Amino acid sequence: MARITPLSGFPEWLPAERMVEQQVVDELRRTFELHGFAPIETRAVETVERLLTKGEIDKEVYGVRRLADNGADGADPSRELALHFDLTVPFARYVLENAGRLVFPFRRYQIQKVWRGERPQEGRYREFLQADIDVVDAGSLPFHYEIEMPLVLGEAFAGLPVPPMTVQVNNRKLVEGYYLGLGVDDPTEVLRIVDKLDKFGPDAVAAMLGERAGLTAAQSRACLDLASIRSTDSSFVDRVTALGVTHPLLDEGADELSRVVDASSSAAPGLVVADLSIARGLDYYTGTVYEVRMQGFEGAGAVAAGGRYDSLASDGTTTYPGVGISFGISRTLGLLFGRGLTATRSVPTCVLVALADEESRPAAVAVAASLRGRGIATEVAPQAAKFGKQIRFADRRGIPFVWFPGEVGDEVKDIRSGEQVPADPATWSPPDADRWPGIKGVR
Amino acid sequence: MARITPLSGFPEWLPAERMVEQQVVDELRRTFELHGFAPIETRAVETVERLLTKGEIDKEVYGVRRLADNGADGADPSRELALHFDLTVPFARYVLENAGRLVFPFRRYQIQKVWRGERPQEGRYREFLQADIDVVDAGSLPFHYEIEMPLVLGEAFAGLPVPPMTVQVNNRKLVEGYYLGLGVDDPTEVLRIVDKLDKFGPDAVAAMLGERAGLTAAQSRACLDLASIRSTDSSFVDRVTALGVTHPLLDEGADELSRVVDASSSAAPGLVVADLSIARGLDYYTGTVYEVRMQGFEGAGAVAAGGRYDSLASDGTTTYPGVGISFGISRTLGLLFGRGLTATRSVPTCVLVALADEESRPAAVAVAASLRGRGIATEVAPQAAKFGKQIRFADRRGIPFVWFPGEVGDEVKDIRSGEQVPADPATWSPPDADRWPGIKGVR
Repeated sequence: MARITPLSGFPEWLPAERMVEQQVVDELRRTFELHGFAPIETRAVETVERLLTKGEIDKEVYGVRRLADNGADGADPSRELALHFDLTVPFARYVLENAGRLVFPFRRYQIQKVWRGERPQEGRYREFLQADIDVVDAGSLPFHYEIEMPLVLGEAFAGLPVPPMTVQVNNRKLVEGYYLGLGVDDPTEVLRIVDKLDKFGPDAVAAMLGERAGLTAAQSRACLDLASIRSTDSSFVDRVTALGVTHPLLDEGADELSRVVDASSSAAPGLVVADLSIARGLDYYTGTVYEVRMQGFEGAGAVAAGGRYDSLASDGTTTYPGVGISFGISRTLGLLFGRGLTATRSVPTCVLVALADEESRPAAVAVAASLRGRGIATEVAPQAAKFGKQIRFADRRGIPFVWFPGEVGDEVKDIRSGEQVPADPATWSPPDADRWPGIKGVR
Repeated sequence: MARITPLSGFPEWLPAERMVEQQVVDELRRTFELHGFAPIETRAVETVERLLTKGEIDKEVYGVRRLADNGADGADPSRELALHFDLTVPFARYVLENAGRLVFPFRRYQIQKVWRGERPQEGRYREFLQADIDVVDAGSLPFHYEIEMPLVLGEAFAGLPVPPMTVQVNNRKLVEGYYLGLGVDDPTEVLRIVDKLDKFGPDAVAAMLGERAGLTAAQSRACLDLASIRSTDSSFVDRVTALGVTHPLLDEGADELSRVVDASSSAAPGLVVADLSIARGLDYYTGTVYEVRMQGFEGAGAVAAGGRYDSLASDGTTTYPGVGISFGISRTLGLLFGRGLTATRSVPTCVLVALADEESRPAAVAVAASLRGRGIATEVAPQAAKFGKQIRFADRRGIPFVWFPGEVGDEVKDIRSGEQVPADPATWSPPDADRWPGIKGVR
């Protein structure tokens, strides 16, 4: 057996970190359900054929095949399987497969692992946990859902142990209309290049716009001017107008983006900013697009992203437009664990029942059962030992209380303060803050 | 694009079923945490080398490889990856990898998907969700944990929407000691054959014991006699003694099994039965073994199983003995969904806020925010429409209440009874039973 070494890009958390992750998932789920999003999970695998219809991602996809299947048994290649690399493609397939059993508009959330064969780096994994919300409708989807998405996510963020988040919003119609108004032939190609602004900077992007998209220097300059506009309210509209480009699609997009920013600034001040550099590389977005950055970790890129798509799924008769956001849980927590985010103890246990001798185990088990019956997580000591040793057992795990059953009456010790008091397992309760592990570290 | 058809063996639930599954996972987690089990997750992939050390399972294992990796680039074969087929092998690897950062005895639970390339059938899947609890110690593990495992699982079952469960318990030492006392040369082979009793019946097993394990007819008979013994208390001991076989290991195992059954019969009457036919095929069990069957679904086989293992993990210096049980969540729920188990509605939403016209959306959004602020899951209608249409929208999803904002005061209608009453979003609450989706169907 080879020596055990971690697999690069496949993070595994220690129990204290996993407890933080669980609390994050719980809070996301609570918020999403309060907003009427229904939960689904999809299988980990899709057919390769379906995963690759969006192109350009084959090098990141993990194929899956039974080891015993050498491929020579005439297997149907259209049934070849691979691990999903996001939750959007599987959701689109799920909607088509279950269209007759779902009612539209369908609001769903989905919190699952996804896999990508990318080169691993800090906060970039090959296996990671992601939380998605989407609203999908049959035929047409009202615009107001594009306003709703960042507000739901912002509400969830407010309950998470994370630094402040900023949702940067742009609108594809605005950008595409602007490019068309400029006389650009291939707005999609321009969009793809502008998407690299963060990575390569304005000079390199201007050069690429000339070389690859055939833009004049003035057009390139105008594209960069648009991308430099940011505002926390609808004042961006005046700055766009000042650039002197006109197109009906530009007006429509500017109006939509104004509505998103204005609604957010009253509901959640500071959460949403209009940022006209946000492009999102994927072709399928057609309206509002979102990218979320975490304060203090801007260099790590987006921790959540999404947008409006008019036809991600279609069965030939009906088209299903939608809007959604994906939040990278592993990504976000990986960064924060690296800065000390963790749980206040390494076990759920609140009370350790000490054991004077092995004969008194049944009595200790009864104390534990009584405490658990009132929702207090309790373990019995693994074996009889000196009480000092049992206290150290609790201390090493961060368990705050040790319970001593006694013939004339029980006592419980807070091992942090050393205070020991008489207690009855039928009535004693810990302070609320000690009942379950809390979260400590960055915020 | 090929027509969309389900993949056999990869179940996907509708939202109402997923809500049931989530409640089941929540209840398992709550019980496990009350007993001090800490949560972990392991990556979905292990190296093929590690997965195959237990032998005989290669045909069930799904290999994983980046589609762009044609295998010709000199990749290290010891780093070839495959999806885990259980949570025990990954847990053993996790313990070795993190031994320096864990404190022992280490109690962990793990609720994750696993993958097996088996032929799919009812309640047998290629991808399924499983919940495991284990206690692992460094060096030696006290016996009392073998008593504890079925009681923890039984406590969780009591809170689940499932029929009564029976934990059948046996002891490897008892069985092996008995075989040795009979003069059998290879007790492990006999055990493997007796494990097939359920599948092939006593006559076929007797024949196999003769042919494959070289047992005499009398020895085969004696093995079947032992396997026929069942009792809900320690009375099995007398029946074993009456068979006239003696061996020190037999006595030790009988004593351990008595302690498991006796402790359970007082703590959870009817949960645990001694069943001396339970063998568990896997070689690594060394003490108590468990199989759990669901009333009314006995023919579907075990829905949970586990046992004591003395050395699943070892780093050459330290050996880590443990005891654990795995509960098949997908398996159990797949059977029960087939009999009508489901949620009382298809969405988490409790209240739909109706919309007289699009101009009143901000007021409706404010009502929804107020209700959510007090933990009531609320959606606003997708668009203004006749109230009858909005009530049908709620009804199709099972949403129990429709809220009508009004200029002189709001009203809320229970669409099941038709009763409509004045209500204030700052104070109104639904009955507790309506707040979140409940569970209905088999039990």
